[in-house]
Amino acid sequence: MLIAFNANPSQTPCFKDRTSSTKSPGTHGRGSGCGARRISPLNYDQIFDQAIDRLHSEGRYRVFIDILRNKGAFPNARCFHGHNGPKPITVWCSNDYLAMGQHPKVITAMEEALHDVGAGSGGTRNIGGNTHFHIQLESELADLHGKEGALLFTSGYVSNDATLSTLAKLLPGCVIFSDELNHASMIAGIRNSGAEKRIFRHNDVEHLEELLAAEDPAVPKLIAFESVYSMDADIAPIHAICDLAEKYNALTYIDEVHAVGMYGARGGGISERDEAAHRIDIIEGTLGKAFGVMGGYIAADKKVIDCIRSYAPGFIFTTSLSPVLTAGVLAAVRHLKSSSVEREAQQAAAAMLKQKFREAGLPVMDSTTHIVPLMVGDPVRAKKISDILLAEYGVYVQPINFPTVPRGTERLRFTPGPAHTEAMMDDLTSALVEIWDRLELQLREAA
Amino acid sequence: MLIAFNANPSQTPCFKDRTSSTKSPGTHGRGSGCGARRISPLNYDQIFDQAIDRLHSEGRYRVFIDILRNKGAFPNARCFHGHNGPKPITVWCSNDYLAMGQHPKVITAMEEALHDVGAGSGGTRNIGGNTHFHIQLESELADLHGKEGALLFTSGYVSNDATLSTLAKLLPGCVIFSDELNHASMIAGIRNSGAEKRIFRHNDVEHLEELLAAEDPAVPKLIAFESVYSMDADIAPIHAICDLAEKYNALTYIDEVHAVGMYGARGGGISERDEAAHRIDIIEGTLGKAFGVMGGYIAADKKVIDCIRSYAPGFIFTTSLSPVLTAGVLAAVRHLKSSSVEREAQQAAAAMLKQKFREAGLPVMDSTTHIVPLMVGDPVRAKKISDILLAEYGVYVQPINFPTVPRGTERLRFTPGPAHTEAMMDDLTSALVEIWDRLELQLREAA
Repeated sequence: MLIAFNANPSQTPCFKDRTSSTKSPGTHGRGSGCGARRISPLNYDQIFDQAIDRLHSEGRYRVFIDILRNKGAFPNARCFHGHNGPKPITVWCSNDYLAMGQHPKVITAMEEALHDVGAGSGGTRNIGGNTHFHIQLESELADLHGKEGALLFTSGYVSNDATLSTLAKLLPGCVIFSDELNHASMIAGIRNSGAEKRIFRHNDVEHLEELLAAEDPAVPKLIAFESVYSMDADIAPIHAICDLAEKYNALTYIDEVHAVGMYGARGGGISERDEAAHRIDIIEGTLGKAFGVMGGYIAADKKVIDCIRSYAPGFIFTTSLSPVLTAGVLAAVRHLKSSSVEREAQQAAAAMLKQKFREAGLPVMDSTTHIVPLMVGDPVRAKKISDILLAEYGVYVQPINFPTVPRGTERLRFTPGPAHTEAMMDDLTSALVEIWDRLELQLREAA
Repeated sequence: MLIAFNANPSQTPCFKDRTSSTKSPGTHGRGSGCGARRISPLNYDQIFDQAIDRLHSEGRYRVFIDILRNKGAFPNARCFHGHNGPKPITVWCSNDYLAMGQHPKVITAMEEALHDVGAGSGGTRNIGGNTHFHIQLESELADLHGKEGALLFTSGYVSNDATLSTLAKLLPGCVIFSDELNHASMIAGIRNSGAEKRIFRHNDVEHLEELLAAEDPAVPKLIAFESVYSMDADIAPIHAICDLAEKYNALTYIDEVHAVGMYGARGGGISERDEAAHRIDIIEGTLGKAFGVMGGYIAADKKVIDCIRSYAPGFIFTTSLSPVLTAGVLAAVRHLKSSSVEREAQQAAAAMLKQKFREAGLPVMDSTTHIVPLMVGDPVRAKKISDILLAEYGVYVQPINFPTVPRGTERLRFTPGPAHTEAMMDDLTSALVEIWDRLELQLREAA
């Protein structure tokens, strides 16, 4: 989840508070690498500079860490920051939740596909880029969710954007009911649909019902929400939402990107665990987190799939996923359908880390999922803790600041998995306690 | 290029000609796999059925062909349609223009990355998914275009959508000038920006100037166009457009997806060939066509890159490209910077195929690029020719129908490359002549 800048007009990068032109005759126009000068009242460079300066002044300019993970040794990685060559680090914030990105079955399947069919697909799904792997994978994903069909996209972001925007356009007068903590990609899809939207308070079914009841029964309705919210680590009341969808004849769209592979007996997500998949019209998932590779998808009735396949520009007019990726995902999905070892090890690791944090008095958020948020409440301090962990302890955890979470709720977000050992957790916990002490932060009464 | 359904309101899938509800009490609502019945005036199934029926009735319902290309033997592939197991075909419509998807350097780089760092990146660029390969590749692409920086996206579609929509939001009051044949992804980005747009006639600089001159000089302006238009195979007058951009102080954005790797001494595209790259503010390219893998990018001044990197939700909130892909692309870009063998072989193949078509009297479009369009002018006939080629001759070329091209200009689009032999071209030409004869189509006077 996140507070995307489009959710709040005051956070858009539109510079509404600036005049639309700045008088600065004689300054450079943009991009004249040839040295040409543009005499104009408009200075593009200055506008771009101001956009960047604003991020610096708010303490939310992002610097990307430069790493390579070490296959066979996850969560170990090499960090290329600094001057003495790559140094070893432990990654605590990967969304490759089950370390499937290094699973031998996945690696072997990708290597075989690479040598069998080559690097890329060479085209869109309609023009040369529809490989046998794509068809097999869609069939496997449809089966995973008990749906008639599935459709692959180049990413989970594109799945949400393309599906929500297209779906609402297909339904005349559609009103979309959206959880206030929905991901940026859902917000993008809803906005790009041009449909009316109603925002309901996070996981608040009473508020959702108020909003549903206020609409004309004859108007198409779509309820869009997530199962596991990745920053607060909480879970949607799926059945209660489906009850309302039935009562008010609304379609349901669930984003399960932080749940597929990890919940349910076969990795079908929270909708499988809660036996609610059959009540959801469209289930959206990712291939880049628990499945360890890249890409996104939806699963639904055949005719919904056929509509999105036929009408969504974001699906139609783009080169399809590399067959190397689809082959790898196929192996990952099949493996996680029959193996629960990874899921159980992940849950055990998350429970253990939360316990160790609590015992040390660290401000861990209560959560019922595999995500372990540690509250800091200040962007500069969150960055500082992260910097010390990396420089002094070889621990990599990214600080989570606005706009990914609301201001004042800045945090560190740990994602322990099957490959994180108890010794790593002990090292991490004592490092955090030392830093908490050094920065004179308050520890809680030990649990 | 294409006529996207958003370019023309009458082509939107919004069912504007239907009433917003259909009275059919007692019918099923959507998605009640549990058997619940929804008594409602609204029937979602019916709406979806109508959307699909419309495609069938217009003869533009798409059926994807099911293939796997054979690495080491491009353009050879296996086709899985039919009942007697996969049968060999020759692919004539791949956008893997230079067969880099099977180049040993690309395959080796991907295999090494797979075994070194694993399958996926495990996160967004900001949270764990920024690998050393991404940084190296961005540096290599910036150098390719003589720009200060570059930025990777998960696809060319996302590059265009995310960059154009974000750029226009950053520039208060921005007006976008868009070639009428721009690709769907550019149209999406422009529409999603919410900015005013002016459509200029295809490659018509006089019309563009009229539109530019009509705007307030103080208003930010952005001219968005392509270099090679992939369906008509023609090329934009880049310098003339840049002259106007300088005169009217507009930014320039060029889509070079059908040119990068293939034109210019190092594969920098038409902007390199025409020595115009320094006059363009933002150059957009793909990693999924001539570079043979998957993904997209922009190259520009550092501050433009920094703005898009920092403000574009489609860049920020998505899992980054798999390091396996970025490693492969890095090898492809480096190779094509120093080798012109592939480019020359592609141009020779295109010239030869056009010559053979002309000599046989087939209605090949005049073009100055590597793309060979054969005009049919009717969707049903284009599909029929394509079907016969596949079933009887083992030739795969996709018919190109509306909305990818305007109605009445339906065509077959051939993309000969370095791996297509003269014998293949002779076979193809005689097959087409036989089919033209069988369908009683008119051949031209032989050239």
